[in-house]
Amino acid sequence: MSKDITLYTVGTPNGHPIAIALEELGVPYEVKALSFKDNDQKQEWFLKINPNGRIPAIVDHKRGDFPVFETSAILLYLAQHYDPERKISYDPVKEPNLHSEELQWLFFAHGGVGPMQGQANHFFRYAPERIPYATNRYIEETKRLYSVLEKRLEGREWLVGNHYGLADIKTFPWVLIAPWSGVDLEPFPNIRAWLERAQAREKTYAGLGVPTRMNLKEMLEKADEHAAKARANFNFKKD
Amino acid sequence: MSKDITLYTVGTPNGHPIAIALEELGVPYEVKALSFKDNDQKQEWFLKINPNGRIPAIVDHKRGDFPVFETSAILLYLAQHYDPERKISYDPVKEPNLHSEELQWLFFAHGGVGPMQGQANHFFRYAPERIPYATNRYIEETKRLYSVLEKRLEGREWLVGNHYGLADIKTFPWVLIAPWSGVDLEPFPNIRAWLERAQAREKTYAGLGVPTRMNLKEMLEKADEHAAKARANFNFKKD
Repeated sequence: MSKDITLYTVGTPNGHPIAIALEELGVPYEVKALSFKDNDQKQEWFLKINPNGRIPAIVDHKRGDFPVFETSAILLYLAQHYDPERKISYDPVKEPNLHSEELQWLFFAHGGVGPMQGQANHFFRYAPERIPYATNRYIEETKRLYSVLEKRLEGREWLVGNHYGLADIKTFPWVLIAPWSGVDLEPFPNIRAWLERAQAREKTYAGLGVPTRMNLKEMLEKADEHAAKARANFNFKKD
Repeated sequence: MSKDITLYTVGTPNGHPIAIALEELGVPYEVKALSFKDNDQKQEWFLKINPNGRIPAIVDHKRGDFPVFETSAILLYLAQHYDPERKISYDPVKEPNLHSEELQWLFFAHGGVGPMQGQANHFFRYAPERIPYATNRYIEETKRLYSVLEKRLEGREWLVGNHYGLADIKTFPWVLIAPWSGVDLEPFPNIRAWLERAQAREKTYAGLGVPTRMNLKEMLEKADEHAAKARANFNFKKD
């Protein structure tokens, strides 16, 4: 094995943050693209890496083939072992308060933006029935969470401290596909500027293409076709 | 201020883990019980502590009135600053792999069990409409997550390493109210034994009563009345 890390992933807002972090840190990694269609993530071999059967996961060959699952746990793992200069994270010992803020905003995204926007996606695009109550519930909650982000970004470039970091990397790939989830970004100028800043980073932009790039414009133009295809390959249990 | 920590909380599966950790660590703390009915958690003064307007949150008077929000971020904060002997956590530097496992299972609960079981609660108990598709979706996902926990607990006393810790503390208060969320624990013997072990800890049991204890038996006996009362005081935006 010539690479330090193997990344098991799919080109989604859960998978992209890990590729972005690996690109930003310059860690040698190889990509194993999983297929939701083939249910790869529920196979025995993969459940040994992630017992929850979801992407992303990594295996660290430099540290005894240690496996790590859950997007945010992987980001913190990479920060501890592969970001000694703290380029995209904050040092728990030297900067304990910034480190705590980083955890607070990571958990805000991990328990809020990700799961709630994921439900908005489901009811707005994929669910076999149109259910106005549920669709509205998750779109409104996603907007509420965005309003918290919008306020946080007032007068700030990044969510935590004075540089780009794990909280941004975890959160912005979800926000990028807001229109797919039924949320208009027009009322959120701070968020829109932040999305531009993040995507302007060359390595981050490269990470957003691993293993595939989400083409929002095309997805929206071919929304019905795309949703039908996604619906066929994707369901809540399989994701 | 004579106490080290002020805890802003409500007696729910999101609030209880912090009281449990404070009790287990013997940290002097005072409790400010918030009222969902009065919408305390959305008041300006509280949004300065938690901009997301949800419980729990803490303020650490020993460290310059530093505020922390998000259950799991608070648990990790308490581990870093108040658990030098690593009684309920694993040392990131001395036990980096156990520390990473702790983060993996914390994030599993924070992004999975909590939000998904919370949705099961909503559609099974509180939603103004009966929506079989949505109710079933979240009950089934909660069961799937429990099956991952059940397998993890095979031959283990606790979720991570060889002692009780943050991942258990974060997860089990949600699992305790499974019947309220429409999930039967009968098929999960490892989980049931783990719940017994956790509640048998005197300090943990004390924490489950701060500021109020959930009386599941009574809740189930008076389910309609309780749900109606909870529905009146609680909605997704206010929680």
